[in-house]
Amino acid sequence: MDPVMDPVLTRTVTKLSDGRELIYYDETPGHDRSAADQRDLPTVSTTSQLRRDPLTGEFTTVAGHRQDRIFLPAADQCPLDPSRPPGRLTEIPAADYDVAVFENRFPSLAGDTGRCEVVVFSSDHGSSFGSLPVARIRSIVDVWADRTAELGQRPGIEYVYCFENRGVEVGVTLHHPHGQIYAFTYVPPRMRKMLEVATAYHGSTGGCVACDALAEERAEAARVITSGRYFTAYVPYAGRWPFQVDIVPHRHVPDLPALTAAERDELAEIGKDCVGRLDGLFDGPMPYIGSWYQAPVGAGRAESHLRWQLAALRRAPGKLKHLAGTESGAGAFMNDIGPERAAAMLRGEQ
Amino acid sequence: MDPVMDPVLTRTVTKLSDGRELIYYDETPGHDRSAADQRDLPTVSTTSQLRRDPLTGEFTTVAGHRQDRIFLPAADQCPLDPSRPPGRLTEIPAADYDVAVFENRFPSLAGDTGRCEVVVFSSDHGSSFGSLPVARIRSIVDVWADRTAELGQRPGIEYVYCFENRGVEVGVTLHHPHGQIYAFTYVPPRMRKMLEVATAYHGSTGGCVACDALAEERAEAARVITSGRYFTAYVPYAGRWPFQVDIVPHRHVPDLPALTAAERDELAEIGKDCVGRLDGLFDGPMPYIGSWYQAPVGAGRAESHLRWQLAALRRAPGKLKHLAGTESGAGAFMNDIGPERAAAMLRGEQ
Repeated sequence: MDPVMDPVLTRTVTKLSDGRELIYYDETPGHDRSAADQRDLPTVSTTSQLRRDPLTGEFTTVAGHRQDRIFLPAADQCPLDPSRPPGRLTEIPAADYDVAVFENRFPSLAGDTGRCEVVVFSSDHGSSFGSLPVARIRSIVDVWADRTAELGQRPGIEYVYCFENRGVEVGVTLHHPHGQIYAFTYVPPRMRKMLEVATAYHGSTGGCVACDALAEERAEAARVITSGRYFTAYVPYAGRWPFQVDIVPHRHVPDLPALTAAERDELAEIGKDCVGRLDGLFDGPMPYIGSWYQAPVGAGRAESHLRWQLAALRRAPGKLKHLAGTESGAGAFMNDIGPERAAAMLRGEQ
Repeated sequence: MDPVMDPVLTRTVTKLSDGRELIYYDETPGHDRSAADQRDLPTVSTTSQLRRDPLTGEFTTVAGHRQDRIFLPAADQCPLDPSRPPGRLTEIPAADYDVAVFENRFPSLAGDTGRCEVVVFSSDHGSSFGSLPVARIRSIVDVWADRTAELGQRPGIEYVYCFENRGVEVGVTLHHPHGQIYAFTYVPPRMRKMLEVATAYHGSTGGCVACDALAEERAEAARVITSGRYFTAYVPYAGRWPFQVDIVPHRHVPDLPALTAAERDELAEIGKDCVGRLDGLFDGPMPYIGSWYQAPVGAGRAESHLRWQLAALRRAPGKLKHLAGTESGAGAFMNDIGPERAAAMLRGEQ
């Protein structure tokens, strides 16, 4: 146990029975986090390999041990619920929790290929990110920032990617509201591309491509959904997804840890607002991928500009965007909804 | 009408009632292709735009007119079936056909953004690529080659991408066996990346990265599925997909038109064999994306090496590979099945 106080959350680091870390982030002090994992789990055996494709130079992670991971368990078997001994023992031994982070039992990245963490947003199985109180989302922002800082200090980690897959349509295997963090030993291709473009732009103009794009979006306004003092949420001019919302800080901030408390406060409000707008578009919850783009570990800090991208996949009631031949095979995205129309719909205008 | 004879197929170019081209490719001569489209279709209005994302430099195609395209019609409403006037008028006015190609009525690319074609593999609605006779697949190879050559001569076209999306899991909106061709006015990102890598490799070694990778795969043999005189089919060392099969010519061939008749004969056999192996893995047809990678129009011919990639998405019975956060957001692929194991399964060894 290693309770750490910060201005907002109390962090308690514990271990599960197989040696994986479990970290409680409590919104109020004084919780007893000594409940032991009563399961007798075997040590996780991972065989992840990074393999470089000679034709593209890009890595594929081959993780053969993941085929047997838990797949859409019944609600009363959810491994992210609080434990109720003796019958219901889960990944979280406590009877309740606020936000909990643990090492994935079936990680894609482990050992010398990186680390995968699960971020459980709430002990309430039936909740969702967009229906959480703003205060909880504010806590999750702090958790993302804390994990970014901590994982970035581990040897070999070059990029910390915080994300949320939401909805079975995206391939979610557990319904309980949660996100994930992949700590990579390399800068993933999309982030590398963005950093290359930002670096070239900085070199030729002295400015930040994301700052300038944000200024243009704010001036044009046609694709802006909502804007505050510190952040603007907009559907980008060249958005790839049916309903893509980029939430971008006005200040040139490289990563989550660099956000001020006031910025985090507003980010929580705008994030909840935007996910709520997505959920309200059609019948039922919106499947989306929420991605945090930030500076790599100890590199590109001057050029990187933090960005939260919500990529929503439903293009109409009952119709999903699929990544078929042109997107998966060619890398060329086709968007059937004009970004201006998507923004108007998200503003509630049509 | 412009009947063109080639050694194998008879090509007849016609027009649909809205002015779109329809091209019959007949396996035997003498068919009357004068049947007129009796529908009174309005001219297709397209609003496709290429928009460049400032953060990545990549294009997104925004095609707002596609939202209303036909979506999984009942079998008796299939627009790819032969026409049966007066009641059943389809995209193909003839009472029967072998292979037919027509301009997509709801194209992502049109006018100055390119051209989208549909390639109908058979008049038999209930058939599929893998269940076609080898002779028909041989014809389809010729059609792909012919379309590549013809579309490449059109002004502004820089890349001809032939592909097949198979299965509703991939987002297919019509069940009738068919593929698609996108003629791009730019080289799509994945092909551009492959060309960059091949060019750098050629510059530093004087060789072809695909030739050398093929030689290594053939020498190691662990991931080879089947091999002939002219082609080898293998699961690549760094394959991205649960069951990825790359079918690669032994000869350094830049594109489909450059294949000899003998190569095309064998390609048809190996292609049918490989799709059959994919369909036989689990219960029911395998969803896959079949992509042709070839040289851009009039560029990179010395460095490019033709490749047919079958990217199969089912990783286990009832379980699909989804492109979630790490793939879609970060561009980093996680493969839960080792390529060696996938190849063994495709060879029927386990």
